[in-house]
Amino acid sequence: MISSSLPKAVKIIEVGPRDGLQNEQQTISADVKIELVNRLSQAGFVNIEAASFVSPKWVPQMATSAEVMAGITRRPGTLYSALVPNMKGFEAALAAGVDEVVIFAAASEAFSQKNINCSIAESVERFRDVARAAKENKLRLRGALSCAFGCPYQGEVSADSVASVVQQLRDLGCDEIDIADTIGVATPRHVQAVMQRAAQEFPIEKLSGHFHDTYGQALANIYASLEVGITIYHASVAGLGGCPYAKGATGNVATEDVLYMLRGLGIATGIDLDKVVDAGQFISAQLGRKAVSRAGNALAAKRGN
Amino acid sequence: MISSSLPKAVKIIEVGPRDGLQNEQQTISADVKIELVNRLSQAGFVNIEAASFVSPKWVPQMATSAEVMAGITRRPGTLYSALVPNMKGFEAALAAGVDEVVIFAAASEAFSQKNINCSIAESVERFRDVARAAKENKLRLRGALSCAFGCPYQGEVSADSVASVVQQLRDLGCDEIDIADTIGVATPRHVQAVMQRAAQEFPIEKLSGHFHDTYGQALANIYASLEVGITIYHASVAGLGGCPYAKGATGNVATEDVLYMLRGLGIATGIDLDKVVDAGQFISAQLGRKAVSRAGNALAAKRGN
Repeated sequence: MISSSLPKAVKIIEVGPRDGLQNEQQTISADVKIELVNRLSQAGFVNIEAASFVSPKWVPQMATSAEVMAGITRRPGTLYSALVPNMKGFEAALAAGVDEVVIFAAASEAFSQKNINCSIAESVERFRDVARAAKENKLRLRGALSCAFGCPYQGEVSADSVASVVQQLRDLGCDEIDIADTIGVATPRHVQAVMQRAAQEFPIEKLSGHFHDTYGQALANIYASLEVGITIYHASVAGLGGCPYAKGATGNVATEDVLYMLRGLGIATGIDLDKVVDAGQFISAQLGRKAVSRAGNALAAKRGN
Repeated sequence: MISSSLPKAVKIIEVGPRDGLQNEQQTISADVKIELVNRLSQAGFVNIEAASFVSPKWVPQMATSAEVMAGITRRPGTLYSALVPNMKGFEAALAAGVDEVVIFAAASEAFSQKNINCSIAESVERFRDVARAAKENKLRLRGALSCAFGCPYQGEVSADSVASVVQQLRDLGCDEIDIADTIGVATPRHVQAVMQRAAQEFPIEKLSGHFHDTYGQALANIYASLEVGITIYHASVAGLGGCPYAKGATGNVATEDVLYMLRGLGIATGIDLDKVVDAGQFISAQLGRKAVSRAGNALAAKRGN
């Protein structure tokens, strides 16, 4: 018996240029990043995570973020987002003309301590000034909640822990909150339970699902999330990226795979899958490797490129 | 809203040793195949597709099938299946002590013509003697229905076409019928519609889902199939195999990925995932490449092998 109806349309946030590329060991030029973002804009994404204003000491790959933001051709209707860790990053993001700033916290105390050396509550508190500044400057504010389904250090993470951090991010004024399976361990019913618990604290239409394909579960988890009404998903062209903290974590769900499924389900995205396949083949060629997207590679093979 | 309950237990048919290996270009020795089957038996599978009694002219890799069947250590409670194309193959399978013979047809007329040079109805008719002989010899009879969700030649395949061939295979006396997405194009709601249509012609508890991960959709399709009550799934350790007729078809869903999801969903299989991961790493090492299973590689990396 199937009774749940699925959403008619969803928003896909393309995270490849930031979340996808940030841990690449080889240096990628600003020109290549600009072309990637432009290709993604032309494909029709309404939100692209394009930059990160963290210290280049910590994430050298993102040192060109201002250059990238200055160089891209902005598509009307597309929001360009950037990760900001603090007020210094916020000022840089503001100067670069970012439309949305992304702040972050973990649902796992152990991960928060290991990753950013403070408790979850402290980490949220540190973003208070950034949140206020975003509002004052009329920038959109997004909260990214990592390790919502499991943690490489503490193992299990409860739905109540997720709900508690969702509350804290909501109270900071977040316009949208990402529920992220950073290490890719979730399975469909677990995802549904956590999403439904989070939706008790924050409007479900502003919650997004960020899934990793480490254990191959991402598309099943997205399908399960659609069933409970989640309408925003993160995806990374060519499956770019991963999590440096989890050995064997092969990374973000590939945008092409997500779009292929959504097309089959009759769910509108406004995105041109063929152009995304092209963008994925482009960046993979630049990185000197095969794209990680199965749909992307199958579609590219089918048309003979 | 989620209302559908999932099955409490499912049967996994491990198809790696036959469907997985049959198109490998490099010759794999009977000893390696025997060790693979033995490892899978020890992992607890109740059904393993271990051999194929087709002409070695057509599938040279399967020429050692009798040797493999003679060499394996049979686990009580496990059925060992073999594909048979005709009476000659049946006699060989019977002599080799196979428990279940697998006959096959396509849901697509175009595929049937291109693949075996006859209509679907003719192809089913040709199996009449095999079906009768299987019954007389008290062997289990399984029908494999390919291209149930799409065809590389004709494109779309209707649910009614699938239902029609399900009827024909049922009338031959099949104990179980596989609904196979040979080229991996299906998405979840399409799968549910076809499975529900097929279940109008044949008991749903004897229908199985055979999915390919060509477009990355297999696990989402299995999850969707669970929702409509399908309790038998085919999977291939380490993601072995593919379809030689479809360019870019990267192959069968990996058993490790399926088992990981089922474990997360609390669905019993009786199979030891760790031993399957070992078997997947074993055969991949023999083939000189990395396993295609994401869960398999992630779990192997986690324990450091």
